[in-house]
Amino acid sequence: MTELSSSSFQLACPIPIQQYPTVVMAHGGGGRLMHQLIEKMFVATFGSGALNARHDSALLQVPRMRLAFTTDSYVVRPLFFPGGDIGKLAVYGTVNDLAMSGARPLYLSLGMILEEGLPMETLWQVVLSIHQAAQAAGVQIVTGDTKVVDRGKGDGVFLNTSGVGVIEHNLTIAPQSVQVGDAVVLSGDIGRHGIAVMAVREGLQFESRIESDCAPLAEPVLALIAEGIEVHCLRDLTRGGLASAVVEIAEAAGVGIQLEEARIPVREDVRGACEILGFDPLYVANEGRFVAFVPAAQAEKTVEVLRRFAVSVNADIIGEVTASPEGTVVLRSVIGTSRVVDMLSGEQLPRIC
Amino acid sequence: MTELSSSSFQLACPIPIQQYPTVVMAHGGGGRLMHQLIEKMFVATFGSGALNARHDSALLQVPRMRLAFTTDSYVVRPLFFPGGDIGKLAVYGTVNDLAMSGARPLYLSLGMILEEGLPMETLWQVVLSIHQAAQAAGVQIVTGDTKVVDRGKGDGVFLNTSGVGVIEHNLTIAPQSVQVGDAVVLSGDIGRHGIAVMAVREGLQFESRIESDCAPLAEPVLALIAEGIEVHCLRDLTRGGLASAVVEIAEAAGVGIQLEEARIPVREDVRGACEILGFDPLYVANEGRFVAFVPAAQAEKTVEVLRRFAVSVNADIIGEVTASPEGTVVLRSVIGTSRVVDMLSGEQLPRIC
Repeated sequence: MTELSSSSFQLACPIPIQQYPTVVMAHGGGGRLMHQLIEKMFVATFGSGALNARHDSALLQVPRMRLAFTTDSYVVRPLFFPGGDIGKLAVYGTVNDLAMSGARPLYLSLGMILEEGLPMETLWQVVLSIHQAAQAAGVQIVTGDTKVVDRGKGDGVFLNTSGVGVIEHNLTIAPQSVQVGDAVVLSGDIGRHGIAVMAVREGLQFESRIESDCAPLAEPVLALIAEGIEVHCLRDLTRGGLASAVVEIAEAAGVGIQLEEARIPVREDVRGACEILGFDPLYVANEGRFVAFVPAAQAEKTVEVLRRFAVSVNADIIGEVTASPEGTVVLRSVIGTSRVVDMLSGEQLPRIC
Repeated sequence: MTELSSSSFQLACPIPIQQYPTVVMAHGGGGRLMHQLIEKMFVATFGSGALNARHDSALLQVPRMRLAFTTDSYVVRPLFFPGGDIGKLAVYGTVNDLAMSGARPLYLSLGMILEEGLPMETLWQVVLSIHQAAQAAGVQIVTGDTKVVDRGKGDGVFLNTSGVGVIEHNLTIAPQSVQVGDAVVLSGDIGRHGIAVMAVREGLQFESRIESDCAPLAEPVLALIAEGIEVHCLRDLTRGGLASAVVEIAEAAGVGIQLEEARIPVREDVRGACEILGFDPLYVANEGRFVAFVPAAQAEKTVEVLRRFAVSVNADIIGEVTASPEGTVVLRSVIGTSRVVDMLSGEQLPRIC
């Protein structure tokens, strides 16, 4: 049971499917067949100037600025899920990591590890999705690599994207900049990506269709900076969810963080699904949500700026930074009790991204 | 039958092997266990300033220069082979792609896809090898990512490295710069990497031990540029070997290339192994060899500069660029006959890098 994103069917696969219905080992062999795949499918689709040069490295022109550089591999299962797919995830995930440094994402690399026997049409859908996501996020794919592993030694498609962005501000956006008194702003409701993937993987049907929140986050972040918000720290809420992200920051910054459960939005259908599955939404992965640590005096303005963007229209202040207990996150429940939020020690949802 | 590089056993694995003898899914889960692995094994070993910041992106300071950016995934089987291992390959392979743009390699990202059940000690050996290779090549690992896939959905370790380098010259090192009359200079003997991997994979024993030529190439390349060689094009001879690299350049540049078989060094043991296995050394992968296209008047100087470095001590002129036949490589054999060299259409040695 796989879901394909609606816009993926517009273009026909440029490799003759009759001749090559599936990926074969030679598609990674460095010879004629690999070159055809790269030229006809990848370069023709992604076609940026730098990629067209077809040289070992892409040449980038970045004048006099600080750069951000990040990498992520993507092994999500299944490849297609409500609201997204591995291609979209691979672009937005890396773009979002750059955004969390306050960088403007510019360039992506794309490494593919394909399993022998992968349907060529599936590869094409992933390539199209990467292309559309890159356009939506305003980044260029400038360099790539393709490897094929034997059947049973991979799982369809694994992707790696690395990203380069420029930093056009003088802020130090990092846990070390977090200060006692800072407000914690959350950009929207949590838990959708994890539940969307889990539901399709397990064949679960809920009353409403829960779609992944998978989306690029650079625009709202750059708007915060442009509006003069003195952003102290940003973190996207991927594997491990809101809880792990906030605990990591509390530990790295040596501060306490107090969160108000009542102000953390969780959609009713997501909450219901979490109850059925035995998950705590605080730990469920997101792919289009982040927290911002900002001076309390700028918290309202932060929320106002974020709400201008569809992806963060439900932004709200969910807590504050306290002097103690150091390295600890405390959650005040709706009924007024408090509990310490810890990092997940094991695994909640494997292969969620 | 696996070979470990001799220097890999110096440090004990920083993860308690009794407690975690193998990688488990939770090592990729975003929780406490993944954080321990990252902190104790990866950050503690690679420990660059940028990596220590533990933020979503590494911040790079690169003043006013053109940048080169490249990516490669590594799926070599087996993980350890005579003369190298997947870690060394992942560092040198990407460093060499940067060098082939004439860039000075500076920063690497590291993405790991680990298979559940991978022995922790094996992971540690790979990590150590990456660390040593990065030191040898003068690059810093500044950002990373770890994913774990279920048993049977991967093959021990897949790596991706992306690299950023600076270009400190004004040359356009690319196939388009190749000119009729250029000399083709080869940096050393060919075929060792492919044969070394194949021999250990197939359990073959040759009279002498054939080791991979796996090595970083930035030093000799930067020396050529520093010595004023007007380098037109560079290409390392990885998957598809010398033949595929040269055919690719002939096609992209729209020129003919004539090679002299007698001047292409192949070690006797490698030649013998190729005969036994039915391989043509021209197509066998290398991981420490490259060709340089330079003006004929600078060919001797090019060879002289390259021979200063151990990795290219056997450099020699192996051919020249001709006006016709366009896009075609012709090999003149020892006995004076000529044959057209084509790109491999299928697969000679899968998973060689």
